[in-house]
Amino acid sequence: MQNFNFNLPTEIVFGKDCVSSLGKKAAPYGKNVLVMYGGGSVKRNGVLDKVLASLEGYNITELGGVEPNPRITTVRKGIAVAKEKKIDFIVAVGGGSTIDCAKAVAGGVYFNDDPWLFMLDNSLFPTKALPLLTVLTLAATGSEMNGNFVITNWETNDKLACFSPFIIPKISFMDPEFTFTVNKYQTACGTADIMSHIFEVYFDPNDEAFVSDKLCEALLLTCIKYGPVAVKDPTDYEARSNLMWAGTLAINKLLNCGKQGVSWAVHGMEHQLSAYHDITHGAGLAILTPAWMEYVLCDETVDKFARYAEAVWGIKDDDKYAAARQAISRTKYFFASLGLPSTQREAGIKEKYFAEMAEKAHRFSDTEAAYFPLKEEDIVKIYEKCY
Amino acid sequence: MQNFNFNLPTEIVFGKDCVSSLGKKAAPYGKNVLVMYGGGSVKRNGVLDKVLASLEGYNITELGGVEPNPRITTVRKGIAVAKEKKIDFIVAVGGGSTIDCAKAVAGGVYFNDDPWLFMLDNSLFPTKALPLLTVLTLAATGSEMNGNFVITNWETNDKLACFSPFIIPKISFMDPEFTFTVNKYQTACGTADIMSHIFEVYFDPNDEAFVSDKLCEALLLTCIKYGPVAVKDPTDYEARSNLMWAGTLAINKLLNCGKQGVSWAVHGMEHQLSAYHDITHGAGLAILTPAWMEYVLCDETVDKFARYAEAVWGIKDDDKYAAARQAISRTKYFFASLGLPSTQREAGIKEKYFAEMAEKAHRFSDTEAAYFPLKEEDIVKIYEKCY
Repeated sequence: MQNFNFNLPTEIVFGKDCVSSLGKKAAPYGKNVLVMYGGGSVKRNGVLDKVLASLEGYNITELGGVEPNPRITTVRKGIAVAKEKKIDFIVAVGGGSTIDCAKAVAGGVYFNDDPWLFMLDNSLFPTKALPLLTVLTLAATGSEMNGNFVITNWETNDKLACFSPFIIPKISFMDPEFTFTVNKYQTACGTADIMSHIFEVYFDPNDEAFVSDKLCEALLLTCIKYGPVAVKDPTDYEARSNLMWAGTLAINKLLNCGKQGVSWAVHGMEHQLSAYHDITHGAGLAILTPAWMEYVLCDETVDKFARYAEAVWGIKDDDKYAAARQAISRTKYFFASLGLPSTQREAGIKEKYFAEMAEKAHRFSDTEAAYFPLKEEDIVKIYEKCY
Repeated sequence: MQNFNFNLPTEIVFGKDCVSSLGKKAAPYGKNVLVMYGGGSVKRNGVLDKVLASLEGYNITELGGVEPNPRITTVRKGIAVAKEKKIDFIVAVGGGSTIDCAKAVAGGVYFNDDPWLFMLDNSLFPTKALPLLTVLTLAATGSEMNGNFVITNWETNDKLACFSPFIIPKISFMDPEFTFTVNKYQTACGTADIMSHIFEVYFDPNDEAFVSDKLCEALLLTCIKYGPVAVKDPTDYEARSNLMWAGTLAINKLLNCGKQGVSWAVHGMEHQLSAYHDITHGAGLAILTPAWMEYVLCDETVDKFARYAEAVWGIKDDDKYAAARQAISRTKYFFASLGLPSTQREAGIKEKYFAEMAEKAHRFSDTEAAYFPLKEEDIVKIYEKCY
């Protein structure tokens, strides 16, 4: 087991009607609040009204229109508004995109240059940020309990990730009923995203952190049980609540404890796919993950895949390769059964920019430091494999 | 899934040589430090020297001699010393007993009456406490990352538990090598204690928190894999590190998320057993847990026991009762295989105070609000069953 440091400062308030305590709990953070949200679904489904009702008495500035794959242009706008209105803290209402954008704004307020610069070089990110509270409406990115955020620059077709400990939300409000209106496709994408976060930790050169691997398997089994239920019946509270909490635990550093913590190859490859084609992150992951699994299966990795096969899919086979291949096939079939594409073609992607995308994935995500080191030509082959 | 609030303010610094950063990390908490420890094993094995070396430059007051099942008399002494020396913060070096005692001292400094009063009525516990840092040397109680503590009063034969959010440690340093010198018996007791913490959450009327139940099973499997390894080879780092981290996660509220959170019957019964006979808590739990399982097995509980059988012991049987009984038997055999007693007689207990103990367990632990409600006469029967 590797040495680790574990520190989870976010308070989670989870359950039905939890947002009614937002106003009271936000009191220590000031009076001027910036409420950020996305394309308007939170207006239609009443979530925003509940948030605003709870914030009665605060000086509220609203900033809607944060897009999926949030853009650096919106971050710039948010920073300008926050400065102008002397914002004390931010409440992000939405899924990972809105929360990610709010993180960049919260830090960007204390950055005296263009915020794209800290996306290009994370070490430039300020050492303080406006306090951030979140109201989650989508189980997927886990952004509600970590310091990660991803921003896209459409001028350069770049989608970059950043991490800062100073931007971890103070409090996140998670009402599973707020996810009832997430449609089948986005529910499936969210499930694939959660599973992918787990895979990127689970497949790691260090297998001595048995307890963390067991926790990974526990969360994978939760996704496999409840993903299909939530897709079939969007208002199933048991399914929505289990997925929502699994989504948070999948990427709040709990699973990483004692693991080596290598760089994330599949996420890096997907960020390029969605940066070039604007497809949903989870759909891109559903396409890439099984292709990556097939590509990296070899004598060095087969034991871990065989363990995955048995613990997650109940597949026992003395032939480890046979077990591994079955498990990969079950993974692919599972994503397809949720209604997700299995290939880029199925996702409507027509152009191929594989060399360009591979160069960026390789450069931005350090794929040679991944579980199975990938050179640019490997990445191109994986893109080809699932075209 | 039940609504819940999850907030884990303790920073964990885990791994080889982690204690060397103690002095630096303690800087925000002041200059006058009270270092508490137990019977002297931390002197013999060099742990205390490492702690004191890291704290060079602080004004150090030492208070050793905290006993297993720590006593209210020691708490009183600690409070007096802390006041006299104008202590700013406490470093507890040891296992759960030392940490529990330090918690009572840290809060007791701000309590203007006898500390036994807040053990009798938890609502009296102060709303502030001296900052507490811990250096863990035993994987068992999980006290390093929660607000629980248990204190014994030998004048009245009472062993009582208290919880306060104000006493959760600020930072805990966990070096698995510090547990290498824990003997086989105490290692076994620690493993039983960890498993018991998990059982008391797992067996809960609410089964909708599937994800939390899966996390419980993950930790139980970790104990079952590594408990015997650590008993056999005390210096096996992989076993010690996995047990140590599992011990923390078992009782830091993570497993409780979404569960109903009923009162803990077996712990309450064991606290009486060790309060009357001064046996190690884990040994008492190893005796009582299988007896409790056998006693509460019925139509209302059999499904959960069958799930336990399959997920933890790999037992599949169409006859749910058969599966449940096998799992209970495996549990009993597992504890015995670690060298733990299966009956009170084996543990050297000669007297029977069952009626008295049952009355106290019932009164202090609210056993009628447990997963399987227990009246005094039920508790007496369980004590009899495992005599």
